[in-house]
Amino acid sequence: MKVNVVKNILDANDRIAMENRQRFDNNNVFTINLMSSPGAGKTTLLEEMGKGLGDNFRVGVIEGDIQSSLDAERVAKAGLAAVQIETAGACHLDANMIQSCLGNFDLAELDLMVVENVGNLVCPAEFNTGEHAKVMLLSVTEGDDKPLKYPLMFRESKVLLISKTDLLPYVRCDVELIKKTAKGLNPEIKIIEISSYTGQGLEEWHGWLTEQITRER
Amino acid sequence: MKVNVVKNILDANDRIAMENRQRFDNNNVFTINLMSSPGAGKTTLLEEMGKGLGDNFRVGVIEGDIQSSLDAERVAKAGLAAVQIETAGACHLDANMIQSCLGNFDLAELDLMVVENVGNLVCPAEFNTGEHAKVMLLSVTEGDDKPLKYPLMFRESKVLLISKTDLLPYVRCDVELIKKTAKGLNPEIKIIEISSYTGQGLEEWHGWLTEQITRER
Repeated sequence: MKVNVVKNILDANDRIAMENRQRFDNNNVFTINLMSSPGAGKTTLLEEMGKGLGDNFRVGVIEGDIQSSLDAERVAKAGLAAVQIETAGACHLDANMIQSCLGNFDLAELDLMVVENVGNLVCPAEFNTGEHAKVMLLSVTEGDDKPLKYPLMFRESKVLLISKTDLLPYVRCDVELIKKTAKGLNPEIKIIEISSYTGQGLEEWHGWLTEQITRER
Repeated sequence: MKVNVVKNILDANDRIAMENRQRFDNNNVFTINLMSSPGAGKTTLLEEMGKGLGDNFRVGVIEGDIQSSLDAERVAKAGLAAVQIETAGACHLDANMIQSCLGNFDLAELDLMVVENVGNLVCPAEFNTGEHAKVMLLSVTEGDDKPLKYPLMFRESKVLLISKTDLLPYVRCDVELIKKTAKGLNPEIKIIEISSYTGQGLEEWHGWLTEQITRER
């Protein structure tokens, strides 16, 4: 008797992520999934991205937080189209949460979508939301041992933004060690040192985004 | 016909946590569950606790990390009895992980046990490990909006240590706002501002621990 073997069934999250990705592609929207520890500077960076990219591109933001809409309010004030997801306890965003709120955007009008994930260096890296690229921030105040302690997010990310470099004179953090261990985990990872306070690295970061958006069109 | 109703069955984690708690109590070991975001300074604080408490008390440490034994090595170097748990991806410690490693300690020889949880401001707060008190660190570099965005850990903690206060001149963070919102979530929470670099607040923190240890004996 022949037994049918069904292979490569996507799990529910991956199936929905693929649908999301299709919608982004159909509308020429480049999408990033922005991840970090709490307080590494994701929302402040988004405010800067509003200033740096807002004249040339239309940017949408999906804010993920356990509770409150503080971040969506900040980002909306910076002129970006923002929708808040309150995860009600969940420590990450998944593809279904993203799909549920895409109806709040006119995707045909957007060039870039940023999914700002829940502040958490662990679980968000495990879930595909349909994005084109995962991007992570690591603040220099968190210390240079983080790539070895939280390797998955470094492996999954296309870009590592080493943030708050303006604080380097006041903390014990070896940026070269971060770069070396991150590259050891993920040789292809692009690394940019940034400071949203001084503006360091923002031009390079906005340049990388511009390249991706233009390619997506 | 009479239907038997069985009430208050503990879930598996709570049952094992209760067993852990019993073992701590039988051995007069005061136990804290130390939680924070990645890089808020838990391990550096433990090194300082080794210096500040090591002459008077015997301290054990259970280190929880996704991967690596970096923290256990640091803490052991500081003279504390340390055991590392690698959670293999899990983003928090639970009661069963703690129970599995208690055999590595001679509990009768200890006064204080510190469970250093995985760096994560979300999930660790949901799991009782059998500790007497949950204690959280919040670094001033993480920003003053964190109590509203991650309320559960603030609600569950007996003590909030506001860490890295030496960086206050260089960051935008309103410590009074943190205190006010934390007290709003948890009116009983004890708050101490600390810096492991300058030593600020460490005497008060060690004093609080000494009081609890002495009471447990």
